[in-house]
Parts: sequence; C-alpha cells; structure tokens
Amino acid sequence: MISLSRLHPLAQQLNAVLREQHSPLFSLLSKRGKAIYFPFDGILGQTAEAKGKKYDATIGIALEDDGTPMRLRAIDACVDLPPGEVFSYAPSFGKKELREKWRQMILEKNPSLSAEISLPVVAGGITHAMSVVASALLDAGDELLLPDLYWGNYDLIFSHMYGATLRTFRTFNDGGFDTGALRSALRRGKGKKVLLLNFPNNPSGYTPTVEEAQCIVSIIRERADAGDTIAVLLDDAYFGLVYREGVFRESLFSLLADLHERVLAVKIDGASKEEYVWGLRIGFVTFAAKGMTSAVREAFEAKLAGTVRATVSSASHLSQSLLLAAYAAESYEREKQEKYAILKDRFEEVQRVLSDPKYASVFTPLPFNSGYFLCVELREGLNAEAIRRKLLSTFDTGVIALGNTFRIAYSSLPVSAIRPLFEHLFLACSPSRTGQ
Amino acid sequence: MISLSRLHPLAQQLNAVLREQHSPLFSLLSKRGKAIYFPFDGILGQTAEAKGKKYDATIGIALEDDGTPMRLRAIDACVDLPPGEVFSYAPSFGKKELREKWRQMILEKNPSLSAEISLPVVAGGITHAMSVVASALLDAGDELLLPDLYWGNYDLIFSHMYGATLRTFRTFNDGGFDTGALRSALRRGKGKKVLLLNFPNNPSGYTPTVEEAQCIVSIIRERADAGDTIAVLLDDAYFGLVYREGVFRESLFSLLADLHERVLAVKIDGASKEEYVWGLRIGFVTFAAKGMTSAVREAFEAKLAGTVRATVSSASHLSQSLLLAAYAAESYEREKQEKYAILKDRFEEVQRVLSDPKYASVFTPLPFNSGYFLCVELREGLNAEAIRRKLLSTFDTGVIALGNTFRIAYSSLPVSAIRPLFEHLFLACSPSRTGQ
Repeated sequence: MISLSRLHPLAQQLNAVLREQHSPLFSLLSKRGKAIYFPFDGILGQTAEAKGKKYDATIGIALEDDGTPMRLRAIDACVDLPPGEVFSYAPSFGKKELREKWRQMILEKNPSLSAEISLPVVAGGITHAMSVVASALLDAGDELLLPDLYWGNYDLIFSHMYGATLRTFRTFNDGGFDTGALRSALRRGKGKKVLLLNFPNNPSGYTPTVEEAQCIVSIIRERADAGDTIAVLLDDAYFGLVYREGVFRESLFSLLADLHERVLAVKIDGASKEEYVWGLRIGFVTFAAKGMTSAVREAFEAKLAGTVRATVSSASHLSQSLLLAAYAAESYEREKQEKYAILKDRFEEVQRVLSDPKYASVFTPLPFNSGYFLCVELREGLNAEAIRRKLLSTFDTGVIALGNTFRIAYSSLPVSAIRPLFEHLFLACSPSRTGQ
Repeated sequence: MISLSRLHPLAQQLNAVLREQHSPLFSLLSKRGKAIYFPFDGILGQTAEAKGKKYDATIGIALEDDGTPMRLRAIDACVDLPPGEVFSYAPSFGKKELREKWRQMILEKNPSLSAEISLPVVAGGITHAMSVVASALLDAGDELLLPDLYWGNYDLIFSHMYGATLRTFRTFNDGGFDTGALRSALRRGKGKKVLLLNFPNNPSGYTPTVEEAQCIVSIIRERADAGDTIAVLLDDAYFGLVYREGVFRESLFSLLADLHERVLAVKIDGASKEEYVWGLRIGFVTFAAKGMTSAVREAFEAKLAGTVRATVSSASHLSQSLLLAAYAAESYEREKQEKYAILKDRFEEVQRVLSDPKYASVFTPLPFNSGYFLCVELREGLNAEAIRRKLLSTFDTGVIALGNTFRIAYSSLPVSAIRPLFEHLFLACSPSRTGQ
C-alpha cells in the first residue's frame, strides 16, 4: 500500500482538493488513482510557458525553419489539413477545441442532461478510455459488477490489466433488462461499488426502455441512500443507434450525473462508432456527480490526463483534427442521419425476417432494439461451434459463436443479405433438411 | 500471486512454448506477462475465419452496402487513401504489411544485424510501446536500471503504472558514457535484471561511441555469463539522428540480438521521430535473443499484441496506412535525407557557437552528438529555475530546466536562432552584464 504522504506533491495537491471538496469521489480512487497527477511542473508545463516565445527551445519535436512541424511531403500530401493540426503532439488532455465540442455535443444529444459535467479527456480509443478509468478507480481484487452479456475484451481491460474481478448478473428477464438481478447484485456487500453498463449492448444490441432506465437509476439511488459509494461506468460506445420507440434514447449519464453525492457517473464514449471511424482511435472520458465543484472536476480531469500521459502520452492529433473538420462541415448532420437511416433499415429487415415463426424451432432472438448486433440463442441440443463451422464451410456465411448463442452484426450486412443469412442459419441448424 | 495453472488456456499454451523452447525469456516475464494471451479463440479469431465469406455477420463495424467501411464524406474528403485503409480497425498486432516493412527497414538501417528478429508489434506510439513491454516484463517492486539522465515520463510509464523502482546510475564520466557506472549497477544482486538504455538520449542528446557501445555490450555479456538473465530495453525513439563521426550509428539491438541466451534485447522505436510524425502515434516493439525459435517469437509477439488489445485495442489504422504510403513514395529516401541535413546543420551551428570560450564561465555543455537536444550544466551558484524565468520574461526565450541543467531543443530552432539563443542564455546567467 502506497502511503498517501509519500505521493508526488502534485498528486497530494489534487487529492487535497478531492478529499476536501468531494470525499465520495476521493474514496472511489484506486491506489493508482490516488498516486497519479499531471506533470504540470515538468517539461510539459515549462513548454506551455514558453509558447509563442521567439526563441523557443523547449519544443520536443523538430520544426522547419518557418516554425511549422518538420514533415515529409510524402505524408503531408495525403492529408488535407494544416500541418500544425496533424504532425505535432496533441495535449495529453486532448485538443481543447475537441474537448469543448464533444462536451457540447453530449449536452445536445442528451437534452435532459442539465447538470454540470466535466470537460471530456481524450483517450486513444474507447478501450483506452476504459483502461484509463479502470486505472483511476479499480484496485486488484475490486469487484466490477456487470450484466452477463458483455464484450469479451472487458476481461483483458479490467481483469488482466487491473486485477478486477468481473462479477456478472443476468442481463435479461422476461424479454427485458433484468432490473431484479441488478438490484440483487448491487445489494451484496457495502461500501465502494463499481458498476459497468453498456447500452446499446455488445453483444445483444439491447438498450433499456424508458421505464427500465428509470428503474436502474432508482436502484442505484437506493444503494447510494443506503450508504454505498458507487462508480457507474457507462460504456456508451454505440450511443445514438436506437431504432425503436419506447427505448431510452439518451445516455444513462443524463439520469446519473446529478443523482447523488455518492454516485459518480463516468461516461466512456468515442468517435469510433458514433462517427464511423473505428480506425482513428478516439475515445473520451466525461464524468459528473452531485456536488462537484469546478476545482473537483479539474482535479479529476488532471488525474485522467495523467493516466493518458502514463500509458500513451496522447491520442492521435490527426484523428482529433479530422473530427473537428467533420464537425465544421456543413454536411455533417445530414450525413449522420443518412448513416443512421441505413442501419435502421437493416434493423427493420431483421425484424421482418425474424417474424417468420419457423425460426422458433431452431433459435430464439434475445431482446434487441439498438446498436450493431443481435444475439440468437440456439435451441437446446444444438452446438453453436459446430454450426458456426458448418455455416463457414457450406453456406459462405460467418457469425460469431458465444456459448450457445450467435452474435450477428447486421451493421455490416446490406438489407439484401439479411434474409439469406438467417435462411442459412436455419438450414445449418436443421441437419435433416440439408441432408448433412 | 496468480497460479500458473489457473491462467487462461491460451496463456498456458504460450507459456509452454516459452518455457520449453526459451526458458530465459519465460523467466523474465512478469505476472501479467505470464497471464497474457492473444484472444485468438474469441471474436477476433472467428472474424478472421469468416473473412471473405459472402454473408459475413462477424464484422464489428458498419459497412456500406458495397462492403466498404461506412464513413462520413466530411472525413473521407480530408484523407487521400482508400477507405479500407483508414476507417476500419487495424489488427491488434498492427498491419501485417507495416510490420514486415518496419522489420525490413530495421535490418537495412542496422547492417550488422544478422540475427533473426521478431516481427514488430505495432503500438499506439512509443510511450505505449514501452508500456506494453513494461506490462510483460516488470512486476511491482522490480528494479529498472537506467542512466540518471532520462525522460521524465519514464516515472509515470514504469513506476506509476507498473510499480517498478527506477534505479539510476551516472550517465557521464570524463566526457563520455560512464561504462563503469553501468558495470557497477548491473553487478548488484543476481538473477533477473531489466536495463533501459535510450540513445540518442533524451535529454542529453548523447549516443555512445563505437568503443563505448562495444564496452556496454561486453558488460552485459559478462553479467549474462555470470548467470544473470537480462532484459535490455532499448528506447530508440531518436534513432538515425547521429551527427558525428566515431559514434555508434546502429541500434545497440544489432549487438545484443544474438549475444546470449540470457539476454533479451527489446527494441522500442517508432515513427514519431524517425518519420517526423509525432502526432500520428505509431510505435513498435521488436525483440530478439540467442536461441529463439520462430515459435518463441510468435508466442511472445502474441503476448505483446494481447497487451495492445488489453490497453488500446489497436493503433490508428490511418496512421499506419500513411506510413505505408510514405514508404511507397519515390521521394521518401530523399526527403528523409533532406530533413537529416537540416538537423545536422543546426547541430553544427550549436557546436560553432559553443566553441566560444566565454560560455565556460556560466555553463558547461554535457556530451552531445545526436538527437534533438543538448544539455548545459550551469556553473555552481546559478539557479536554473530563476534563469529560466528570466529568459522567458526578459529575453523572449524558452528552455527546459532540469535540476541545474537546461535542455535545449535545437531541433526546433532555425540555424539563425541558435547564436541568439545561447547569447540570451549567457546574458541571463551573467546578471552584472545585463544590469539586472
């Protein structure tokens, strides 16, 4: 155990702010979360102070004689952005403009969110954003509560890297989110708790209904009222892709940001899915809790940015600038709508196809209403892995087998391919009909 | 302590290969290094198997109806590369083409390197590459030996994140690298040792001479012969920027890659400085040791890529493709030479300016011959921080103060600014002459 008094003076300063002005947040910090600081006093701080000086020998890159970043034309020619927005380092916090724009967009996309929220810290993708949050909040042996349908990489992100124990509760009950299972899971033990919710969910493609969302929030409030201090990590990777009426279209962040002093809401999201730029690696961490002052927000932002610095230095400057270019484009909103409409058409085709009762003889779809995926649970006695192999070898068809379910990414299928895909699935599950 | 038999079966498979075919490498692994695996069996493996299938519902991104990545024209319009090389995820290992090209370039840049080396694993910048290596090799409490002039972010990368203790030895003695200090440091204790060497060095701008390089290698061999197992981490961020004759121009990797079964050479490098693309965030990890089979290399590559997956999922696809575009450009080699020549001119101007004996009254340059920087050590009694502030306020000049030295990045100064900068430094250090 690291002694708090032996921490770096900058960490002690940040800790003093958190402890004095928001003790629940301080109590949620892991050992690394307590120890981390942003090195404002070192090279970064001194470089910032020298900015704009005529003779600036602080800059740790190479500049051309004209003061622009040194660069190869062979690379510069491929990118239509000013070199200063591409080649130099972005700040570890992320580009200020992008942080402010992303915050503004969070507020616009979540109209009922009226609480003060932090300025997002930019990470190198959503995985990295989760890793940064895990570093700040999870110690080895801490439990991470989450629904049992979850993205497999959580095992590596949270358990392998930080030693957290993933404790799952049942995702679905009676065609909807199993709020009872959440309540039971959250009731166990007392004190610090960390809950991870991912909606639209990977792999199931489910987002809670409005009623379920309210129920989830009331369960969390109930535990906070009972004395628990709860960090709720919201993996909002697929935010915005809700296709059905009655589903809660905002992030749960809206309902949690000002819920309770002992509820820290951490929104983990990114451009990867929201802007269709998986390969650009830009994620964000934004947080809020009742009673946070701006000093508290800045202190925790500094800890998150310090963790970015400690793990990747900074996220891609080029990727951040490309996003800003998109947000400045007149066509941006329309293009986003067009892409959403394409995905919604595919969702509706999936629904149409699955309305055929014959499929019930081989599989049952799990609830889905959003995101990229749906899961179908195979009838007892069917072997998912064997059928997956048969689909590959005989039907020119690929699906992901997870236990006794298949995850189907209709996000990557044209409408015309959806019916054949399910037909293949049906045939592969029905050996008598294929003669195999 | 994690029990080895309770590890993921894929980790156990990798460990069996390493233990049976290269026990020194296995003995260097940290707990995380033993536990990590690449999830070949999960979504990634199943997606790979479905590649090229007509009905592929494994892909975790959105595709247009024509099978190309879904994308916004507002972003696509800024990048002159095929969408499939920009928007989709790159593999966690890195793009195969880039890994092969980078390996080929390492061999070309290091002509005396004839040993078999691994296929580089791509990380999200050099910091991330170091973090990945630290995860695989360093447990909390392990010592990391390194010269006392080192990049400040090592504290966060190695100590904060992985709990390593940085134990430094003196960098310079008598105008050159202090091989005696290295020998003493490496002699302490027995068993697993991890040494970190960074040449050209940040902050000093020093690279060992040919003789010093050979001496460093013989010291390492001596310890390996004596029974130690040594991981030598080579931070080659500034590789290639050597400006003086007699300096060892290759990476120490050349001399270490086939030195001894108990010496693991890990080359950590990247495009950031070598290709003048700091903001693109591409680093590499490449390793070698005497007696490695291809199965051993593949197993350790899988562990490194698993760590990439666990921390950032993958590095920027766009950035990787931009590098490949540069390497395919006819102008690439010439442009690299042009940039090198500019930096060498600046280095030579620094030398010319510092040949004036007057500077000896206020500071002494530390040895430098390469990279971006030099350091000057202030005469006793001068306060670096006070002079730094005076330079900012009175001389329109910025330098980095590190203890009683200044780090000066001549990489960011046109030749014409170098003499004035040192003149300002001289004046700021000589209060009687400025009347302040």
